Amino acid sequence: RAEAKLIDGKAIAADVREEVRVGVAQMKEKIGKVPGLAVVLVGERKDSQTYVNAKKKACAEAGIDSFGTDLPGDATEEEVLKVVADYNADPNVHGILVQLPMPDHIDEERVLGAISYEKDVDGFHPLNTGRLAQRGREPLFVPCTPRGCIELLERSGIEIAGKEAVVVGRSNVVGIPAAMLLQRRDATVTIVHSRTPNSEEIVRRADIVIAACGRMEMVKGSWLKPGAAVIDVGINAKDDPSKKLGYRLVGDADFESCKEVAGAITPVPGGVGPMTIAILLKNTMEGAMRAYGMM
Amino acid sequence: RAEAKLIDGKAIAADVREEVRVGVAQMKEKIGKVPGLAVVLVGERKDSQTYVNAKKKACAEAGIDSFGTDLPGDATEEEVLKVVADYNADPNVHGILVQLPMPDHIDEERVLGAISYEKDVDGFHPLNTGRLAQRGREPLFVPCTPRGCIELLERSGIEIAGKEAVVVGRSNVVGIPAAMLLQRRDATVTIVHSRTPNSEEIVRRADIVIAACGRMEMVKGSWLKPGAAVIDVGINAKDDPSKKLGYRLVGDADFESCKEVAGAITPVPGGVGPMTIAILLKNTMEGAMRAYGMM
Ligand SMILES: NC(=O)C1=CN([C@@H]2O[C@H](COP(=O)(O)OP(=O)(O)OC[C@H]3O[C@@H](n4cnc5c(N)ncnc54)[C@H](OP(=O)(O)O)[C@@H]3O)[C@@H](O)[C@H]2O)C=CC1
Ligand SMILES: NC(=O)C1=CN([C@@H]2O[C@H](COP(=O)(O)OP(=O)(O)OC[C@H]3O[C@@H](n4cnc5c(N)ncnc54)[C@H](OP(=O)(O)O)[C@@H]3O)[C@@H](O)[C@H]2O)C=CC1
Repeated sequence: RAEAKLIDGKAIAADVREEVRVGVAQMKEKIGKVPGLAVVLVGERKDSQTYVNAKKKACAEAGIDSFGTDLPGDATEEEVLKVVADYNADPNVHGILVQLPMPDHIDEERVLGAISYEKDVDGFHPLNTGRLAQRGREPLFVPCTPRGCIELLERSGIEIAGKEAVVVGRSNVVGIPAAMLLQRRDATVTIVHSRTPNSEEIVRRADIVIAACGRMEMVKGSWLKPGAAVIDVGINAKDDPSKKLGYRLVGDADFESCKEVAGAITPVPGGVGPMTIAILLKNTMEGAMRAYGMM
Repeated sequence: RAEAKLIDGKAIAADVREEVRVGVAQMKEKIGKVPGLAVVLVGERKDSQTYVNAKKKACAEAGIDSFGTDLPGDATEEEVLKVVADYNADPNVHGILVQLPMPDHIDEERVLGAISYEKDVDGFHPLNTGRLAQRGREPLFVPCTPRGCIELLERSGIEIAGKEAVVVGRSNVVGIPAAMLLQRRDATVTIVHSRTPNSEEIVRRADIVIAACGRMEMVKGSWLKPGAAVIDVGINAKDDPSKKLGYRLVGDADFESCKEVAGAITPVPGGVGPMTIAILLKNTMEGAMRAYGMM
């Protein structure tokens, strides 16, 4: 049989980013305004700084204004809340994101809940989370990575409605919202987690597998129903002496064995990864369009 | 093989109500206060009036103060919101519930969202719904019927963690919160809905089935894994000329065939039904205990 079709996240993310760029240019032409994204960073984690810089660069390429506040690692919760309140009040800011994780002395839920839910581009505000979980309600924003997973499926022509989907992992950031999104599109969804005794058997029922368990190459080809679509959210560093850095990135699915059985699969890197920022830009543009009454 | 064990919802609900009665009496003795529940009814639906009266009677038996406001069916949304705001401000009220459904001209989401989430005994406030859906967050209140389903399982000694559970139905009131609660207790949960093509096959995988599809006697014995626990949320009127009223109440599971295969099953009536009010009382008492710093 043929190998799985590769779902090219890099190309699809580039399409999304181009659509956003065009949308932003049209907005500028029509009303003389562009979307604005504010990023709040607390502390000096290297990885967080890298992510924040990547987001700002992507904004610039799309024509989105970016705002940023970097607070020291010992900033108080009140200082963080003040920064958020100022961005809430700023009409040129349409999306606010607080880079996670924050230092331990800051109550993450409180800070996320303080972001105006109309500027909650990360989709972590309880009102958006609550609405995502409810039938007949529409969240204003959906978390970027799970929304990216859905766009990958949809733009690859993979049907969701009426299919069985298994989400491996139940984090607030990926697994649970991904399951909700699949369910809203009428998949029949099962969530597998670390306390599931028979994950392998359950994954084998799935037409669509979302691997988001943070366990390197856990989902094997032998776990798959032939023809299943595999969206691999995982990012893990695997020792590889042949690489300059001594490692390479691999997913939560075992790409080599999975591609022999799956019908379609995302590579790592170049699958879900590039979608997260693309969707962040899209969410920001949609926030601006709502603010200006354009959608 | 032996028939399924009957899960006696009437007896379990009586236990819960007795526990609440004792808790309320202790609260009164310790601090001279009792919990208060406010019920807001808009319009003159006969069934709603019956439910509201049953709730008030149950409060009286448990020693809980009940407050009530009945508005005419043409009351404006502002009038309803004003009533809710007054109860929000009243320190003797620890639970507020707005009887659903409300007339069409009233925005249900807006009214439910206006109830202080610290008095949201029905658990429908978006903050409580959102937290229920999230790992590491605790809702203050959980919707009564799904919480009742879990109490029936737990008090019958049916293990949840590590088991496969299938919830048939995905309403905001029953199916979705029931699925979340099972998942929080480490079941592996699948939600089946009207767009699921192979419900029967999926239900047959379950150690625990929650039937909440609003389809009379849909889940048959032949759909069950032998020994499964069946919690039947359904309430349907089935023609029965041998009864005085010309009908009898039946569930969303076919009791006669299911009891031959299941390990345990709730009857209808006398299963989930009596739990809903019992949990409402328990939620109200817990709200009062939180308000008075007793939990
Ligand atoms: N591409 C991107 O942009 C992003 C990629 N990621 C990557 O996605 C993956 C998941 O991230 P995240 O959701 O944040 O991770 P978390 O560590 O927060 O959650 C992992 C989840 O997987 C479950 N799990 C752990 N072990 C097993 C197992 N053996 N079998 C089944 N389930 C298991 C856990 O279950 P339990 O709840 O029981 O502990 C938990 O729910 C990671 O590899 C991460 O690097 C994350 C975010 C963005
Ligand atoms: N005991 C008690 O105190 C209470 C009892 N009830 C009873 O519980 C039952 C469910 O109530 P509620 O959740 O409010 O009902 P809803 O009508 O709001 O929801 C029914 C759900 O079942 C799904 N469904 C419908 N047909 C099928 C099918 N053929 N196969 C699989 N799923 C199906 C629907 O799917 P979709 O979303 O795709 O349309 C929907 O999600 C009813 O019988 C009701 O009377 C309700 C509340 C309290």
